[in-house]
Amino acid sequence: MSGFSFRTSHDQGLARLGWFGTPHGVVETPAFMPVGTHASVRGLAMHEIADAGAQMVLANAYHLYLRPGDVMVRALGGIHAFSRWAGPMLTDSGGYQVFSLARYRTVREQGVEFKSKIDGSLHQYTPERVMQIERNIGADVIMQLDELIAGGSEQSASRAAMERSLRWLERCRSEFDRLSREGRADAPVLSVPDGAPALQTHDIDRDRAAPAQALFPIVQGGVYPALRRASMDGILQSGDWVGIAVGGLSVGEAKSAMYDTVDECAVMLPRDRPRYLMGVGFPDDLVEAVARGMDLFDCVAPTRMGRHGTAFTPDGKVQVLKSSYRTDRRALVAECACPACSHYDRAYLRHLFAVEEPLGPRLLALHNLTFLMDVMRQTRAALRDGVFARWSEGWLARYRAADRR
Amino acid sequence: MSGFSFRTSHDQGLARLGWFGTPHGVVETPAFMPVGTHASVRGLAMHEIADAGAQMVLANAYHLYLRPGDVMVRALGGIHAFSRWAGPMLTDSGGYQVFSLARYRTVREQGVEFKSKIDGSLHQYTPERVMQIERNIGADVIMQLDELIAGGSEQSASRAAMERSLRWLERCRSEFDRLSREGRADAPVLSVPDGAPALQTHDIDRDRAAPAQALFPIVQGGVYPALRRASMDGILQSGDWVGIAVGGLSVGEAKSAMYDTVDECAVMLPRDRPRYLMGVGFPDDLVEAVARGMDLFDCVAPTRMGRHGTAFTPDGKVQVLKSSYRTDRRALVAECACPACSHYDRAYLRHLFAVEEPLGPRLLALHNLTFLMDVMRQTRAALRDGVFARWSEGWLARYRAADRR
Repeated sequence: MSGFSFRTSHDQGLARLGWFGTPHGVVETPAFMPVGTHASVRGLAMHEIADAGAQMVLANAYHLYLRPGDVMVRALGGIHAFSRWAGPMLTDSGGYQVFSLARYRTVREQGVEFKSKIDGSLHQYTPERVMQIERNIGADVIMQLDELIAGGSEQSASRAAMERSLRWLERCRSEFDRLSREGRADAPVLSVPDGAPALQTHDIDRDRAAPAQALFPIVQGGVYPALRRASMDGILQSGDWVGIAVGGLSVGEAKSAMYDTVDECAVMLPRDRPRYLMGVGFPDDLVEAVARGMDLFDCVAPTRMGRHGTAFTPDGKVQVLKSSYRTDRRALVAECACPACSHYDRAYLRHLFAVEEPLGPRLLALHNLTFLMDVMRQTRAALRDGVFARWSEGWLARYRAADRR
Repeated sequence: MSGFSFRTSHDQGLARLGWFGTPHGVVETPAFMPVGTHASVRGLAMHEIADAGAQMVLANAYHLYLRPGDVMVRALGGIHAFSRWAGPMLTDSGGYQVFSLARYRTVREQGVEFKSKIDGSLHQYTPERVMQIERNIGADVIMQLDELIAGGSEQSASRAAMERSLRWLERCRSEFDRLSREGRADAPVLSVPDGAPALQTHDIDRDRAAPAQALFPIVQGGVYPALRRASMDGILQSGDWVGIAVGGLSVGEAKSAMYDTVDECAVMLPRDRPRYLMGVGFPDDLVEAVARGMDLFDCVAPTRMGRHGTAFTPDGKVQVLKSSYRTDRRALVAECACPACSHYDRAYLRHLFAVEEPLGPRLLALHNLTFLMDVMRQTRAALRDGVFARWSEGWLARYRAADRR
């Protein structure tokens, strides 16, 4: 666990202010992590993500394994050098993508076999293989391979997937540890096309050594409290984890079921480790989850919704194409410092979407990210000031008032 | 012509260094103007255009007339306030768009009738109407309505279009002058949708007064020297123009025919007025046209080609998807200061295009614009230093060397 640390202060109920130290810097928690699936947050430059207040960025091992290839990312200096994000990074294993995107897939105890949606080629995704891939890519935090099932699955299916995920966690950890001890496989010699310079000569010993990384297990078990407890039991008995993720939520279950499950997990998870709630990224869900003791979050919703014309505001979500914006020269959100709000007005933003100019999706995606970063900054300030309960009540009431009207 | 000025210095052959003063600032010429069709340079923010070195930006009267409407742009404070480009701007009349994009069009002496490609609605585009539209939009320089015909047209068709364009120029000028004297029509009361604030109250007298603008005539006549001379004769006899444009080139004719036509025009056009060569924007064409006495340029090519993965470099055009870039960690163009070249490497740029991340088109469009701005800066420096002929010979030889290999 060298290079990693976590300390908290200012607990209020289950919520807490934290500092998650990684080999590439410290993340002040609660924190939202923008998703850079292909080592790029869709349409946005890394300096814009940084200006928006991002501290840690996600990438996806499945997508990078397919293109440009994990070995290529390693040869190009690792994910930080490749993407030019110098701060902390995390790769999801890509399990979700294997289960949802691959054209054909066969799940066995050994792992998942799937055909690439790009060229139909056949791939084996085993816990061991995923560790090799994620250690080649080189993010600070890497996620285990878990078995994903559809939201709303029966308890028996949820149990089977949860139990398999625990077995796969064991195999992930063994391979992760083996790679730490023995180093990574020698990088295969990459063919360099005509006219290209040779890749810079790596220090072979240094290149073999696996980078300092932390493996996070993922709590599964659907919306069934007993299964969630069993999942956590298994995880906690099997190792001393740097941090622990809660997965399988925000997949169509009722909000109350999601909050209840988070409650269930928060009580049982060790308080001295960061908790990462996967795939949750609506503003009000973040505030609710912080109140329930979660520290890290990611979701494509803010950028995806922005690209499709929905903006987050302190008064709830807004469609930027709404007719009242046609003549509205005010900033989208007066108190927001993002480029959309500081340089342009609602009439112009609406116009960009009306004529399908790509600056519109870009500006609104960055606005939504900035908005989430601001919400996280406000949660941290409220925790520091000891007013989180009061602050979150007021914030949620205002955010949700429009929905109730 | 209040608010406009032009002076030149450092003539070398037909090439010259110039300063074109407009109500919104001075443009150092030779200069390339990025095209912001819908008051947005596709995918790029105005501050990026400014950082790239742009001095003057184009918008398109046809597109803005359809959406959001010229009256709406005026009500929102005019094109500068609307687009947040504080510097000089120019609107093309949209004649090209009417002739090439409209679903149905009927050309008569009175003007053009066309159906909108957006909703099928019927529109009249007469010289008078176009002047009213461009004066509502409020760019510094506005273009006459001219009749466009297909590149490679017969001499008789070219003559007829050229002569009609001269008659339309007369009507444009009359209406332009009338609007200067009498002011613009009272802005119709715009319906303000429910929940929208009223538009800010304008000073009605000030709003009626037409902004300080210059109307540019357009030399037509295809690739026929006699027609070009007749067009220029007509233009020069009909008024004392702030600047003059050369149109109808770069529409499929041979490069040599284009250069010959520019030569023909440059000799005859008054030396003390800026010359705007419309629609020309490949790097080598710009250098050739500067040598032939042209001062202002516009073209969608740099941004469009960038979006489609073609980058301008000092050694010619490059496809960013080329296989040798797969492992190439060098900057796209070492001496370029654009974000693509200063933050990222070729391997990452190639990856962005390979996985169709929208950051790729955005970065490459900005790179190509920056590249053209740099070429223009180099032409100005070479003129100032009295070495333009030698500089352009060397620059063109290097740029074209790859094509000859």
